Amino acid sequence: MSRSEAPAYATLLAAAHELADAAGPAILPYFRRQLAIDNKAGDGSYDPVTAADRAAEKVIAKLIGRRFPDHGVVGEEFGTRQDDARFRWIIDPIDGTRSFVTGSPMWGTLIGLMDGDKPILGVADQPYTRERFWSGKSGAHMRDATGRTKRIKTRACRKLGDAVLMSTHPDLFAPGHEHDAFMAVKAKARMTRYGGDCYAYWLLACGFVDLVIETGLKSYDVAALIPIIEKAGGAMTSWDGSSCAEGGQVVAAGDPKLHEQVVKVLGTWG
Amino acid sequence: MSRSEAPAYATLLAAAHELADAAGPAILPYFRRQLAIDNKAGDGSYDPVTAADRAAEKVIAKLIGRRFPDHGVVGEEFGTRQDDARFRWIIDPIDGTRSFVTGSPMWGTLIGLMDGDKPILGVADQPYTRERFWSGKSGAHMRDATGRTKRIKTRACRKLGDAVLMSTHPDLFAPGHEHDAFMAVKAKARMTRYGGDCYAYWLLACGFVDLVIETGLKSYDVAALIPIIEKAGGAMTSWDGSSCAEGGQVVAAGDPKLHEQVVKVLGTWG
Repeated sequence: MSRSEAPAYATLLAAAHELADAAGPAILPYFRRQLAIDNKAGDGSYDPVTAADRAAEKVIAKLIGRRFPDHGVVGEEFGTRQDDARFRWIIDPIDGTRSFVTGSPMWGTLIGLMDGDKPILGVADQPYTRERFWSGKSGAHMRDATGRTKRIKTRACRKLGDAVLMSTHPDLFAPGHEHDAFMAVKAKARMTRYGGDCYAYWLLACGFVDLVIETGLKSYDVAALIPIIEKAGGAMTSWDGSSCAEGGQVVAAGDPKLHEQVVKVLGTWG
Repeated sequence: MSRSEAPAYATLLAAAHELADAAGPAILPYFRRQLAIDNKAGDGSYDPVTAADRAAEKVIAKLIGRRFPDHGVVGEEFGTRQDDARFRWIIDPIDGTRSFVTGSPMWGTLIGLMDGDKPILGVADQPYTRERFWSGKSGAHMRDATGRTKRIKTRACRKLGDAVLMSTHPDLFAPGHEHDAFMAVKAKARMTRYGGDCYAYWLLACGFVDLVIETGLKSYDVAALIPIIEKAGGAMTSWDGSSCAEGGQVVAAGDPKLHEQVVKVLGTWG
C-alpha cells in the first residue's frame, strides 16, 4: 500500500458531495426512459446495466482523478484503478438497478471512501427525490426531499420481536442454510418488508427500520453505507460479525444489542 | 340509488386534484415521525393506522361534503356516508401504511370516484416526492418530482416471459390455491419485485412494470387506480376477469393481451 498524507475529513466529505452533485445530472436523463438493458452476467441471469450507470461512473472517476490523483477508484462498471493506494473511492452509481429500470425511486448513488480496509466516509444520493444521506465527522446526516438537512439516528430496538426487517428479495438467499437462516430471523421479527436495496439502509439509519439482512453484496454495495449506519448509531457487519467491507452476507441493525442477537441467530445456521 | 345530475368530468377532476392538494399537507407532518401505531385489526395482526390517515380523511370528507353535498363518501377510517348516492368518492388517504411507517416513499393518497358501480375517475398522489397520477377524460397523466406534467401510457408486453411483475408481499397470498396461482405466474415472469402498494400500479401505468398481482384488497385500494390504468392503456380486474371495483384478488396488466393470458393462468388454480 503506497502511503499518502491524509486530507482532512471535511475536505474528503466536501469532495464526496461534489461527486454526488455531478453524478445525479449524469443519471437522471436516463431515469424512467425505456432503455436497452445489457446482460452483464452473460449467463442468462438478469442483471441490468444501464447507460446511466456508465455515464455517472465516468464522471465520478474523472473528478476523483483530477482532485486526488493518488487515490484509488473501485467501480462496478470499469473496474479498479490504483488498487494499492491508501485511499480508495468505492463507487456504485446506481445501487438498485432493478428498481431503476422499473421506474421505482428505491435506488441510489453510493460513494464510499476506504482508508486501507476500513470504510471511513459515505455519501448516498437519490437525485430523483433529491434525498441525500452521509457520514459526518461525528454523526450521520440527511437532506430530505424538501431540502432540509438534519442529523439522523437509528432507533433503539432490543428485541427481535419488535423489529421491522427489510431485505431486497427473498429469492436472493441460496436454498438451504442461507435461506433458512434468513427465514429464522424473519419468523421472529414483527414485520418484514421486501424491496429497497440501499434505500433500506437509509431508512435504518433514520430510525424507521431496525434490521436489514442481505446476501451476495459487493464492496461497492456496502462501502458507503457502513460509515453512515455506524455514525447513525447502528452496526453493520457480515453474518458472522466480522467486517463486511468486502460485501457478501450482510446484517445491519439500528440497535447494536439487536445486531448482537441477530448475529447469534444467523450463526446457528452457519 | 338516488339520481343526481352528472357534473362535467373536468369539474370532477379539478375537485379531485383539490382534495389531493388538501390531503398532502395534512399527511406530511406525520411522515417520518415516530408514531404511536394503533392496531386496527385488534386481533394481534399488524395493520397500522396513523394519525395522518385520519387527519387527511377528515379534510377530504369535509371538502367533498361542502362541494358535492349529494355525493357519497367511502373512507377507510370513518366508514361510509350516503352509500346510496349515484356518485361516491372512495378515499384511502394512505395506501401503503406499512411503507409509510417505515419511512419509505412507496405510499400514496388514493381518491377515486364511482358512478354507480363503475370507477370513472382517479387521482393518486405522493406528497413527499411531489408525484401525482390521474385519469383525464381521454388519457392518463402524471406530474413528476420536478413538477413536469406528461401523458403516461402502459407498454406493450404480450409474453409473460418478458413481463416484470410486482406485488406487495409474497406472504399476503393464502397458502394453497392462491399462493400457488401467484407463484405459477411468478415462475414464468422475467423478473419479480416486491413492495410498492399503489406505487406498483403507477409504475405499470407509466410503462415500466407489466403486471401487478395482489389479493385481499378493499374498494378504497383500487377505485382510484382502475381508471388510471385503463386510461393509460392497461387492464385491471379480479383474477377471474370480472370487475375488481370492490377489491379482492386483483390483476393489472399494461398490455390487455398479457392480462388475458394471466387471467387464464390464475384461473387454472381457481
